[in-house]
Formats: sequence, C-alpha cells, structure tokens
Amino acid sequence: MSVVSMPHVGVLPAGDLGTIADVGGVTVGHCTLDSGAVQTGVTVIRPHFHDPYRQKVPAAASVINGFGKSIGLVQVEELGVLETPIALTNTFGVAAVAQAQIRAAIASNPQIGREWSTVNPLVFECNDGYLNDIQALAVEPSHYQQAFDAAASTFERGSVGAGRGMSSFDLKGGIGSASRVVNVAGEAFTVGALVLANFGRLPMLTIDGVPLGRELAQRRDAAKAKPEQGSIIMIVATDAPLDARQLKRLSMRAAAGLARTGSVYGHGSGDIALAFSTAWTVPHDSDFVATPPLLNDARLDPLFQACADSVEQAIVDGLWSATTVVGRDAHTRLSLHDAVPDLEQLLKRRTP
Amino acid sequence: MSVVSMPHVGVLPAGDLGTIADVGGVTVGHCTLDSGAVQTGVTVIRPHFHDPYRQKVPAAASVINGFGKSIGLVQVEELGVLETPIALTNTFGVAAVAQAQIRAAIASNPQIGREWSTVNPLVFECNDGYLNDIQALAVEPSHYQQAFDAAASTFERGSVGAGRGMSSFDLKGGIGSASRVVNVAGEAFTVGALVLANFGRLPMLTIDGVPLGRELAQRRDAAKAKPEQGSIIMIVATDAPLDARQLKRLSMRAAAGLARTGSVYGHGSGDIALAFSTAWTVPHDSDFVATPPLLNDARLDPLFQACADSVEQAIVDGLWSATTVVGRDAHTRLSLHDAVPDLEQLLKRRTP
Amino acid sequence: MSVVSMPHVGVLPAGDLGTIADVGGVTVGHCTLDSGAVQTGVTVIRPHFHDPYRQKVPAAASVINGFGKSIGLVQVEELGVLETPIALTNTFGVAAVAQAQIRAAIASNPQIGREWSTVNPLVFECNDGYLNDIQALAVEPSHYQQAFDAAASTFERGSVGAGRGMSSFDLKGGIGSASRVVNVAGEAFTVGALVLANFGRLPMLTIDGVPLGRELAQRRDAAKAKPEQGSIIMIVATDAPLDARQLKRLSMRAAAGLARTGSVYGHGSGDIALAFSTAWTVPHDSDFVATPPLLNDARLDPLFQACADSVEQAIVDGLWSATTVVGRDAHTRLSLHDAVPDLEQLLKRRTP
Amino acid sequence: MSVVSMPHVGVLPAGDLGTIADVGGVTVGHCTLDSGAVQTGVTVIRPHFHDPYRQKVPAAASVINGFGKSIGLVQVEELGVLETPIALTNTFGVAAVAQAQIRAAIASNPQIGREWSTVNPLVFECNDGYLNDIQALAVEPSHYQQAFDAAASTFERGSVGAGRGMSSFDLKGGIGSASRVVNVAGEAFTVGALVLANFGRLPMLTIDGVPLGRELAQRRDAAKAKPEQGSIIMIVATDAPLDARQLKRLSMRAAAGLARTGSVYGHGSGDIALAFSTAWTVPHDSDFVATPPLLNDARLDPLFQACADSVEQAIVDGLWSATTVVGRDAHTRLSLHDAVPDLEQLLKRRTP
Repeated sequence: MSVVSMPHVGVLPAGDLGTIADVGGVTVGHCTLDSGAVQTGVTVIRPHFHDPYRQKVPAAASVINGFGKSIGLVQVEELGVLETPIALTNTFGVAAVAQAQIRAAIASNPQIGREWSTVNPLVFECNDGYLNDIQALAVEPSHYQQAFDAAASTFERGSVGAGRGMSSFDLKGGIGSASRVVNVAGEAFTVGALVLANFGRLPMLTIDGVPLGRELAQRRDAAKAKPEQGSIIMIVATDAPLDARQLKRLSMRAAAGLARTGSVYGHGSGDIALAFSTAWTVPHDSDFVATPPLLNDARLDPLFQACADSVEQAIVDGLWSATTVVGRDAHTRLSLHDAVPDLEQLLKRRTP
Repeated sequence: MSVVSMPHVGVLPAGDLGTIADVGGVTVGHCTLDSGAVQTGVTVIRPHFHDPYRQKVPAAASVINGFGKSIGLVQVEELGVLETPIALTNTFGVAAVAQAQIRAAIASNPQIGREWSTVNPLVFECNDGYLNDIQALAVEPSHYQQAFDAAASTFERGSVGAGRGMSSFDLKGGIGSASRVVNVAGEAFTVGALVLANFGRLPMLTIDGVPLGRELAQRRDAAKAKPEQGSIIMIVATDAPLDARQLKRLSMRAAAGLARTGSVYGHGSGDIALAFSTAWTVPHDSDFVATPPLLNDARLDPLFQACADSVEQAIVDGLWSATTVVGRDAHTRLSLHDAVPDLEQLLKRRTP
Repeated sequence: MSVVSMPHVGVLPAGDLGTIADVGGVTVGHCTLDSGAVQTGVTVIRPHFHDPYRQKVPAAASVINGFGKSIGLVQVEELGVLETPIALTNTFGVAAVAQAQIRAAIASNPQIGREWSTVNPLVFECNDGYLNDIQALAVEPSHYQQAFDAAASTFERGSVGAGRGMSSFDLKGGIGSASRVVNVAGEAFTVGALVLANFGRLPMLTIDGVPLGRELAQRRDAAKAKPEQGSIIMIVATDAPLDARQLKRLSMRAAAGLARTGSVYGHGSGDIALAFSTAWTVPHDSDFVATPPLLNDARLDPLFQACADSVEQAIVDGLWSATTVVGRDAHTRLSLHDAVPDLEQLLKRRTP
Repeated sequence: MSVVSMPHVGVLPAGDLGTIADVGGVTVGHCTLDSGAVQTGVTVIRPHFHDPYRQKVPAAASVINGFGKSIGLVQVEELGVLETPIALTNTFGVAAVAQAQIRAAIASNPQIGREWSTVNPLVFECNDGYLNDIQALAVEPSHYQQAFDAAASTFERGSVGAGRGMSSFDLKGGIGSASRVVNVAGEAFTVGALVLANFGRLPMLTIDGVPLGRELAQRRDAAKAKPEQGSIIMIVATDAPLDARQLKRLSMRAAAGLARTGSVYGHGSGDIALAFSTAWTVPHDSDFVATPPLLNDARLDPLFQACADSVEQAIVDGLWSATTVVGRDAHTRLSLHDAVPDLEQLLKRRTP
C-alpha cells in the first residue's frame, strides 16, 4: 500500500468515512470475479435499508455522453424515482444483473407483474474488455445477489466489484468514492459520490490541477493514441431534501468534477451521472406523497460544489485505491502507484 | 351568434365557467388591436392574484413541435417555475411584450437586476401574418399592460386578444378555453386549458371525432394545399398539487387533445404546451420551500384525461367563439359558423 | 376469421403489403410461446438484410411516456443510429433478448468488446402479465434467434410473437402493422409502422373516429376502472432520406396516431416510438459518412401525416388481427371480433 | 497593456488569429455603450458572409444550466439550424436585439411573415447589472445594426460589446476568443470559441490548472460569498462537416472547458453553449439538402478536445483582454492585470 497521501480536492471537508456511505443509510457491496481471463464483477449501491420498491427513492440522471448501454434511465427520467438498488457491472453483464434485480424484487413483492405493475431494473456499465474476457459473459444473476448481500457502510475501493477489470488513463481504474459536507441554510448536508471509472487516456490525466499525464505519457510508448472506449458512471447521493428536478441539476455537476481530471467526455465514453436523495421516499402505492420542505434552488450552490468536488475526489480515490491487475491475454494495467514510483515528487512540484 | 350548441368532448364534466378560470385564482385579460391591416393583440394569463415574481408558480412545458419563437422556456425547464404572468401575442410581438414584462416586474420589485437577479419573461406566439400586417410590428409594451389590467375570471374568447388575427383549419381561429373536473384520491380537482389556436388545414378538421374537414374541403377550392405555417399554444392550469416534473407529464397530454382535432403537429406549427399548478408557490428568496402533499404519479390518469379533453374542447371552443375577421389586403377568415351554415346537420350525422 | 373489413384510416393510400415491410428491405419475424400459463414471445424487426453493426441505421426515438424498461435508447439518442435488429418482448424478457443480441453481434463480429467497442442492444417491451405468467421469465435467448431467423417481408399479426400475451382496451391486443405512401418533392416515399399494442382501457377505444368503447363499456361490468398498466411500442420505418434529427421529429407523430385511438398516454403506459430510415447507412468504422440529399424539413408534412395514419392503422390492425387467448389462471382476452359480434353495424353507424 | 504572456491551454495549436475567426468566414462585431452608468453593448457573430435566412447554418446547443433568458433555442433544437446572426447582449437587451434581428431579416426578405414563414431571432444574454444600470434598458435595435455592420475577422476582446459590463470571478470579464486546429481523418479542421464571460466567484478562479483564486481571495475581503448571478455564453464554430446532432455533442464539450476554469455551473449562472458548422448550409426553401460527407462520430474526439480547450482558452483570453471598468454607483471591476500585479510570478510557480 502506498504511503503517498492522496491530495484533497478543493476546500470543502470530507465526511467521516470519506465515501458515499457518509450519506446516512447508503451502503455498498461488491462481488469480484478474478480468475484468469475473467476480471470483472458487480457493485451494488443500496440507497437505504428498506425495500426500494416499496419506498422509492427520488432520483434523476444526466447523460453527459450517451455512449452507454445502461438499463433503467427511461423510467427514472419520467418518474423521478429509483425502485431497485443501483447496480454497476461490465457492458455485457447488464442483462444478467437486470434479471437478478427483477427476481429479487419479485421475491420481496410477489404482486409484481400480477396485481401490481412491473419493476424497473437500474444497471449501469462500463466496458472492461481490455483486462476482462467480456465475451465470456461471466457475470451471472447470483453475482448481483452476492454484491447485494455484502453491502455495508464500509467497503473496499479500487480493483474490486464492477471495478475489477476497469482501466482509467491507461492505468488501473475501478471503484472510487468520496464525500463532502456543506452548510446550507443553517444545516449540514452531505454529498457523496461513487464512481466506476473506466475512462481517459494517459496524456489527459490531471490530478488536483496537475497535468501529470503529459509527463507520464512521454515516459512510455504504451500510450499510443488509441481512441477512448471507456466510460464513467458517477453515482451521487445526498441527504439534502431535493426533488427529482433538483437532483437532475445536482447530477449535472458531476460533469464539472469529471472535466477537472482531464476528460472532455470522449466519443466512446459513456459518461452518466445519477443523483439520489435519502431525505424522503415515495411510497409504492399511496394517494399522496409528503415531502419534507425542499431546499430552495437559490441555495443549491454549496451542494453543486460538493458534487463536483466529490466526483473529482472519487476519481482520484479510484486511481489511488486500485491495484495492478493482469487479465486476459496477459493484458496488464499497472496501478498508479506501480506505474509512477515518483508520484509523491511529481505532485509536490505543485504550488502549495 | 350561432344557436348550434357546441359538442361536449368526452365524458368528464366541465367546471362552472367552462374555462381555465375554473381553476381558482386564474384570470385572463385581452388587449385587441383591430384597425385595418392590424389585426392582432395580446392575451395575459395570471396564475394568481399576487406577484408571481415573489410567489413563483410551479410550471413545466412540453415542446411538441419546436417551430416557435417563444421566450422563457429555457429557465422554466431548469427551475420548474414561472415568475411572470403568461403572455400570448403574435410572432413579432414577443420582444415588445417581454420588454413590458421586464418593466412591470421591475416596477414591483426595484431590486431586480441590482441586489436581486433578473426576471424571466414568458411570452408565447403564433404567426397571424395572414390576417395581420405582422411586419408593422404593431404590438407595443403598453398593450401588455392593458391586457394585464383587464384580467378577470370571465373573459371573451374567439377573435380577441392574441387570437384576433389567428387562423385555424383555414377558418377563423383564436382564443378558446375549457375545463374539466375530476376526482382523484377522494378529492375534486380542476384542469383548465386556454389555447391560442392558429394551426391546421381545413381537410384535417375533426370535431369530436367527426372528420368534418374532409367534406368541407371538397366544397371550396380555397383549401389549396398550402403548408401549415400556424402554431398552437396550449396553457394548462390545475389546482391539483403537482410538482414541475409532474406538470411536464401533464402538459404532454395536450398533444393527445390536439391530435384528436386532426393535427399531426405540422412542420411549421409551433405546438407548445405549458402546465402550471395553483396549489402552492415557491417564495422568491427563502431557504426552504414547503409543498403540500403531492399526488402520487400513480393517481394522475384522471388529470391526464382532463388535460387532453380540456385542450380538445378549448380548440373547439375557439372555433365556436370566433367571429369572421377581414384583415390586411382584404384577407378574410370566415368563422366556423359563417363558413358552415349547415354545421348542426353535419354534426348530427354522428352516432349519438 | 371475421368478414368485417377493417376501416382505412385517413385518405393516404397504403403500400402493397399494407405493413411495415412495404418499406423495402424491412422484414419481421416472430417466436411465439403459447403453452398454458406462458403466453408471450419475441418479435424482431430487421431494418435491412445486412449486418446492422457494420451498416448502422439512422434512427431516433420519442419517449411519449417513459413508464418503460427498454434497453438501448440512451445510445440511440446520442449517436442517432441503431446497430442491432429491433427486438420486442415482454417486460421481464428484455434481459434475455439483449443477451441474445449481444451474442449474435459477437458471432458476426468477433472484434466486439476486444479490438472494437461494444454493441448496443435495442429491446422494447410491454407488460403481458395479465395473460402471461411473466414471473416465469420464460423468454430465453434462443427465442430471439428463432424470431430473427423467421424474419420475412410477409408475417403474421395479432396474437403472435411479442404480441402473444398483450391486451389493448381490455381486448386482445398484440402486433399490428400498416403503411402509407406519400409524394414528396416529386418522389414517392413509404412510411410503415409496426406496433406492439398493450395499452388502453375499453371505454377509451376509438376506431377511425368512432368512440366505440363508450358503448362497449356499458355492455360489460368487466370494464372495471383498473388503472392502465399497458404500454405501446411503435416502430416506424421509412425509405425517405432523413437524418436522426428528422427521424426524431417523425417518431413524435406516432403520438398523434396513438391519441386518435383514445389514448391519453396513461401514467402506467410506456409509450415509445422509434423511427428509422432505410435510405442510407453509417459504416461501422469509416472516416466520413456520405448521406444522400436529405429532405428539407419544410417538406416533411406528408411524412408526418403518413406516420400518424400508419400508427393509428397499425393499432386497428392489431385489434383486427388478434385472436382470443386464454392464459394464466384462466385469464381470457377476447378478440375484438369475438367480443363485438355486431362490430360491422356499430362501425356502419358512422357518417360515410 | 500587460506584458505577462497568456498561458496556452493544452497541447493543441491555435489558428493564425487565435480567435473564432480562424474558422473561415466567421466575423465578429461590437457596439459598445460606455457612458456613465450605462456600461453595456451588443456583440454579433456572423457565421458567413451571406444571408443566413437564405443559407441557414447547421447548429445546436447544450443548456448546461438554464438560468437564462435567451431567445431562439426552441427552434434551433427542433430544426438544427440558425437563420440569423448570433447576438449577445445584456439580459434586458434581448427584446430590443431580437426586434432588430426581425427587422433586418424582413429588410432582406420582404416575404417573411407574408408568403414565407417567420424568422427565428437568436439572442443570448448575461446580467451585467453590477456595472451597468440594466434597469435603464439602454440597448436599442440600432445597436444591433451597428454591431452587425462592424463585423470583421479581426475584432477586439475584453470590455467591449456585450462584454462591456460583464464580470467574471469578481474581476472584469467580457468577450474572449480562441481557436484550435486539429487533424481528423487526414484533414485539418479548426474549432473556434467566443465567450461572453460573466460568471464565477474569485475563490474558484483557476487558470490553466493553477487555483489562483484561492490565494487571491485571501488578499481581499471584497470576495464576500455573494451568490453567483452571472452566466456564460459559449459560441463554438467549426469548419468540420458535422450535422446538428453532432454539433450538439460538440457544444456539450464546452462544459469541460468551463469546468477547468473553476466553474461548477452555479445555480444563478446561465451556462449555454451553441455550436455551428460552416461546412454546409441549408437553403431556405428547397426540396432536398445536400450535405458534404460528414465526419463519422467515431472520429470526433480531436474536435471535442479542441472545443474544450478553445472554450477554456477563450475564458482566459477574456480575463486577459479586459480593462478595468467603473460603472453605475461607482461600482468598479478591476481587470485581472490591475487586480493582480504579480500575476506573472503567481503563474510561474506552476510546474513547467
């Protein structure tokens, strides 16, 4: 484990855990498949401890670049809620995971598809085909259930779960997470982000404003100009009382955090942000929905800042947490620490 | 005035007034310019009696076909509120009316543009250039103020206000309005519509399911296949407690009512629907916004039906209320009643 | 088979086949599962005879009401092409069919997910849970392949393929198709529609302007006010040279055809239209994309009319073609012909 | 004039002029009002030398944060073209400038609003109310005409035209411009940006990755946490052959360049990007539209990079070019050079 301490993005303080789980009730679980050419997995984010089908969670998404094969966003856009846990996996694992979400929802709610309407699975993906034999379609429904069962407020980041086979900036990418605490209208609110980072080419890499990638790219010929085929999924949670329209606004600020790391939202990168609030829920079947007093839009700037900073920090955290992985056909992605032994010195050159 | 009674669209009952003013607090005023080649005007819809800048009104729009030159929708989409009365006028009158809205808002709130932010004018338009000498740019800021001052819960429809110069189905179009009352979750809610109808070619005309236009088109050679250059603005009000996301859903149902009259949303027709709720407001500058308990989306179907029916009825009402107008270059638009003396018989042929 | 002839919607002529296959190169295939409680299936629409991954097809969609669980629309919106055949199935079959589309694409293009990027499956769904034991998750990847292999320019409609278990207006719904031919800029172009109809409650049913449903609903107490849990998928094909932006405009006109049948786009109905053009393709990997001269937007009105009429006609065709189906728990949906023995008389009452 | 040389953002080369006018045919003109409390103006961007109503220009916009009062975007979104020059002004000047655009279009095309349809004015705005007495509504239609007449391929930046009264990062903002040249598919293409910068609070200011604002904010107590009431309009031009859908993708990359300067798209900041191509035009009234071979989306990454870099560079250029302005009530905005005498040293501390 590296002793180089991770830069803290911006001036806002992090929460206690420094992850999305600082938003109370949010838990994360992984199922990691790391056997030979299969280097992939599933990550589940539970927005609260209850059944989200019964207690739907206000949510909205921004599609920053829609080169992506997620399932579930059409209904989130229309109804402004999610009704399953959020699942992340590889591109060709979406179907198996969606199937598992459907089965899990039916198991808890046998009326689904009969007396009741259906359930909207919500699965995001990135293409881990460089390290993982994605054509093997190794992800199965049971892996979703294992990730779900593992969900906890403390969880690993880096080369785990859906992040196992992911690459970022020609380095090992994967799962990263971060949080920020802000004061709005006299109250403290938390914004947390979890990213599945699989985007970026080395020359673009920028850490906390330092264009590290330019220098690193000169060191190795490996950084051939291959077009980006990555993606990044950015999940943003907050305990601030926001409705779906406001959460859509919040989710859009993930684009700012992402840009600061060097991304220009490449053509082949599915860059999608989804934000949800834990401050209230929508009962599955009621006449009326009571919301708490919502924040006035005119007060949202600190939350916007927290979103951008959390997402940037989560991307850095993913690089920091990742370990080197060797996958299919001996393809190797070095971790940031393994690839850049003098990382501390490079970052130090930065103005304090 | 015709003695032919207007068909009642659908099975839902109308409110007492049978107009958008059945939604409590909503008032409408006109300023009509009808002098020679100038046949145009301004119509103002006030969502409530207070200053909408201080008490913003939840609102959202659906752009069904965006061949239109309105001002204000960008901010309505982002913030989900309107903060001025809604104004309707001709295409080249938008600027003058927007200017008037800005001046009126500043007059009531001198902080605007100084200590406070700016104000978002909201003006919709149709092209009345067939009857009106639109190049004269006859609409002036004072006309907005006159329409505003005239706003009341009873108001004329037909060839008045912004509807003065409008055409529909090669007949005289203009302002129409209607309402429907529905029961949702044990409570009665009202949906009202006001349209500025300037769309459609004669062969398309369908009244309450009767394809009247086909027959009428055969009667006159005037119905040469000129491409549609019209538009329709559909304003939908409700006292049901909905948020902006739900109001966007509601506004989309205007497309169904519009289609039933024969429209296929022609290329050159700016077909825009905006819905607002009078059930709550957003204070200009507060920390939090309290909403009443909102209707669960799963309960919205009766309101959707009421929206479609109100819009269809309002279009019919516009045709029914309009009087024949002679405008620039002796261009003439006959009212439905003048153009179709045997209207009653034609409609009677319909299955009861 | 009924001898009542189906009304012809509107004044535009149909193509030779009277189906979406009038658009040259378009073929349709079904795989029908009709065993006891399992009443469901898969329908595949091939836009051309070639591999759509290599020769991508310009396409765009309008989400009229987003209560739906399709997969693939995020990328269609971004890139304006489809790269697999279009598949229709039941809500819980999406995952299996998407999996099959991925496998089929890899089989033809082993570079997918390795040297090349991934593939975007495109699967739409409706909830056939009234007739079909949807919880059985009976649809398997092989059913997609069977439907694909069966694709031809002549194909059955009604209670087949994905339409096997669908209901419309409390009657048997399913697959319907229609076409219209229009003259634009001196050339003949065809618009074809194929619908998977699973929407509507009986009192709403309107056939060619006749509000049949009101009368039928009075006949039976079965038409209890159950909220709509249906959906309709509307696939629109044309040989007119349009780009993705124009195809989005075209797809929106499906909303007009849908409304004329009585729909107000119910809350629980996923109403989605997708339009594609066969006039040109986008090579998978080229520097430039040559398009034919595209139609000027100002010339699109005949195509808009053809889209609305085709979709309305396709819905009627679906009702006309469907046969009575008995499904799970002895749930029964009568065909229109079985349910309304006096259909001919009811329709005759209409003004000629 | 400062002797501190402006940092060059990124690694792509600029065009010869280093402005949006490097895209051949694009010209820019200003009309500046700088008299006492009136510190405002109009800036016009002409996409080509011809009448854009007759030769419409492919264009599309991304609304990154819709706190804005522009006019014209509804139709740009629907039809994918602009048909007037692009105008920039202050928030309350939109109406006067739109009026002027209408009059100018009619003057060249007397058929507008009569035989022909109407014209879609396109005006963007920022709120310059800190320096400018915006309530004076000083912008008049003639100012648009003056700016139009002044359009040339060389033009001033900084405190001129619409930029006269604008503020950025609590410093003097205004007009900035930049360009980048990239190689795509063996051909050189240029992307140029022009911004009207009126956004950002001092602590956020980041120049080429250096978080300058944090340090500067500590120097002065003036940087009190006033919420952002700014905005930024980002106009992007390219000679690459793109259609409207692709231009929408390109415009979205402005969000990346904007974020790198410190913005998180503040609540009160109308952040809008519009991109157009000069590679082809849409004739006002023709049957077909011929496009050149369009770039394959898979080749767009260099253009995306060029857009982000140009926009970031244009923002820096605006700060660099601006001169100190004293406006209403003795409100003063110092230029970057006046406010930061040791700018060169601060920037030098950066890692080379």
